[in-house]
Amino acid sequence: MSAAFDYAPLFKPGLPAPAAKWTGLAKYNFVGGNNDAEQVPVDGLIAASQTVLKREGHTLATYGLAHGPQGYRPLRDFLAKKLKRDAGIACAAEDILVTSGSLQALDLVNGVFLARGDTAIIEQECYQGSNRLMRLGVNTIGIPLDGDGMRMDVLSNVLDDLKQRGVRAKYIYTIPTVQNPTGSIMPEARRAEMLKLAEAHGVPIFEDDCYADLIWGGRRPPALYAMSRNGGVVHVGSFSKSIAPALRIGYIVAGWDILSRALSIKSDGGSGALEQMVLAEYCIPHFATHVSDLTRGLRVKLDTLMEALNEQFGTAAEFEEPKGGIFLWVKLPDNVDTLKLYQSALKAGVAINPGPEWSVDKAYSKCRLRLCFASPTIDEIREGIAVLAEVCRNEFGVPTRSANVTRAAGRS
Amino acid sequence: MSAAFDYAPLFKPGLPAPAAKWTGLAKYNFVGGNNDAEQVPVDGLIAASQTVLKREGHTLATYGLAHGPQGYRPLRDFLAKKLKRDAGIACAAEDILVTSGSLQALDLVNGVFLARGDTAIIEQECYQGSNRLMRLGVNTIGIPLDGDGMRMDVLSNVLDDLKQRGVRAKYIYTIPTVQNPTGSIMPEARRAEMLKLAEAHGVPIFEDDCYADLIWGGRRPPALYAMSRNGGVVHVGSFSKSIAPALRIGYIVAGWDILSRALSIKSDGGSGALEQMVLAEYCIPHFATHVSDLTRGLRVKLDTLMEALNEQFGTAAEFEEPKGGIFLWVKLPDNVDTLKLYQSALKAGVAINPGPEWSVDKAYSKCRLRLCFASPTIDEIREGIAVLAEVCRNEFGVPTRSANVTRAAGRS
Repeated sequence: MSAAFDYAPLFKPGLPAPAAKWTGLAKYNFVGGNNDAEQVPVDGLIAASQTVLKREGHTLATYGLAHGPQGYRPLRDFLAKKLKRDAGIACAAEDILVTSGSLQALDLVNGVFLARGDTAIIEQECYQGSNRLMRLGVNTIGIPLDGDGMRMDVLSNVLDDLKQRGVRAKYIYTIPTVQNPTGSIMPEARRAEMLKLAEAHGVPIFEDDCYADLIWGGRRPPALYAMSRNGGVVHVGSFSKSIAPALRIGYIVAGWDILSRALSIKSDGGSGALEQMVLAEYCIPHFATHVSDLTRGLRVKLDTLMEALNEQFGTAAEFEEPKGGIFLWVKLPDNVDTLKLYQSALKAGVAINPGPEWSVDKAYSKCRLRLCFASPTIDEIREGIAVLAEVCRNEFGVPTRSANVTRAAGRS
Repeated sequence: MSAAFDYAPLFKPGLPAPAAKWTGLAKYNFVGGNNDAEQVPVDGLIAASQTVLKREGHTLATYGLAHGPQGYRPLRDFLAKKLKRDAGIACAAEDILVTSGSLQALDLVNGVFLARGDTAIIEQECYQGSNRLMRLGVNTIGIPLDGDGMRMDVLSNVLDDLKQRGVRAKYIYTIPTVQNPTGSIMPEARRAEMLKLAEAHGVPIFEDDCYADLIWGGRRPPALYAMSRNGGVVHVGSFSKSIAPALRIGYIVAGWDILSRALSIKSDGGSGALEQMVLAEYCIPHFATHVSDLTRGLRVKLDTLMEALNEQFGTAAEFEEPKGGIFLWVKLPDNVDTLKLYQSALKAGVAINPGPEWSVDKAYSKCRLRLCFASPTIDEIREGIAVLAEVCRNEFGVPTRSANVTRAAGRS
């Protein structure tokens, strides 16, 4: 064996930091957008895979199943109907591009629009901005959120300011329906205001609806895509939250001008056909019922998490009740540094998302964290939050030992 | 409805041409690396999906199935054993990254190494060079091929020349085992020579073995990865050719220095878990038997194609018999322009790959074409080649009407 080959001088400059080796999942796992294992519709997926493979399995011999690069046709037909029913979107199979999860959808839309040095407007708290856009060398402007989502007064000022400086932002990215991480739903009136602002400034809206199926109340306002008067909205969604995240199927809804460009850089030979076939076969009869059951179960887990936080942290943990989804955005006292808490908690078996990983405002988010509640069991939620409180107390002196008693009665 | 939003000024500069709308598959489809529909192991895949979903379906609730971002562990364990047995590669599950087809593997390796203005050495005839690298703004140097693959005399001169100019190529890309499109297999001695040259010049080899399972003789020389003395080889492979192309599962075999970088830019939340699970469950007991059956069937189709070419084109169609795979690289008389032939043939229902799309030497490849023979049936092969000959005769005057009689007896 010669001396080992040194690849380092050959790597492309500016790569992200190399990945760390996988060390397994934490015992109490409040990260990652995972779902409830008990609620994966295993029997339904087995039946669907049987039926669809028996009927169409031989078509796997052809890239794209002879349905073309936009994806399995029955899945796109299902999506067109579902999007009409749930989000008011009038679209056809031709307006949909199936992707390998909504993460590939983000990459494709970013690939179509963004060059180094471009400007993109995003929500101040969001994963896309904090992690993905930074790597692309894009100037990201974060708009602060309130309980109804992105603040339109700030957006208006930012757009005016950019105009004065001769800068046209490439898009306004938003998760209007169950915002990640705050869990808000933007009301219809604010959506209309946002569309008006975007249209006036000639900036498209990039609408990410990937959590929109999981809403406690069921009903939701129409999608921005549906409300747009000029087609200036690109819409993406996913089956990760409604069915299972390990199935990597998402989608882009847009006009052909966008889809034809996204397709030209989608160099993967199509997204996984078996997952598309099984999803279509399962979802056509079962989607609505399944999502309703799933959401009921998630609501119980959210209630458990909020109770556990109240019991363990008392007034030290502040949060708004989310309108749906799988995560809770929590503020701890100002002296808590959640990047440090993350490290200590992980050693104690509790995985959390520290706020700065979910925000472009590192100071604002320093004492905040995201807790995903779909994956841990009810017991794990209770135990994990108790461990987290203990770790936080040891490191930051909060919550105090008496806090939990005071607060437990005060918030339900 | 306002005037339609004009996205054009917002697109990233330098995007590839927008995709054309899908118009369906040609009647006689000799393109695209598709496989034989009759040979998709549908019953085996149904049984595998049943078993694995029953046993592990609930794990779909977690990104990466709790096996981490490198992919489903049983699939990586299977690959480690298979690669040892078939290609002499000693590797463990830790050295394997499962990707969304080998096309994503190409994109990831390219993403790790290549910046605009870099130099990459490739085979003169190959898809990767002609289409993918050009888009990245990489200087591609094509090395001509003979019946044993890449010519080492030319490679040596090119490496010396680059050295003199102070240029270190980022990699030497090769498909040594069933080269695409020429179907050659590089003998072990030439592999050793190539490794020596690459090592002497400090240039890694990027070995693409995605057709290597489909060999008429069964046995193959060890992979370059297996023969390397210094670890200067990155190896990629795929299940597209051995099982089914619509299942989008490929892999990279490399050291952690490479995989950790590939993982850092693999921003898709993992590759499709259901496809990984079903493939592992099916392949562990059935892979070797299936590939043996598949290859036997493909060989019959190749024989049919070569006979049909001899009958219809006579001496006007020249080709070397490939050592395996799913394609035949054909030379027509010098006056034939296969880019034009492609257009006319498509109108007549015959899809072919014109040579210039598979080569960096557009003059050399002008009268050449690639014919994929796995997807069409035996009858379609015969009929399609007859139609192709008729179209070619009408447009370019070859083959002459008598050619087929002369040649049919001459080559078997």
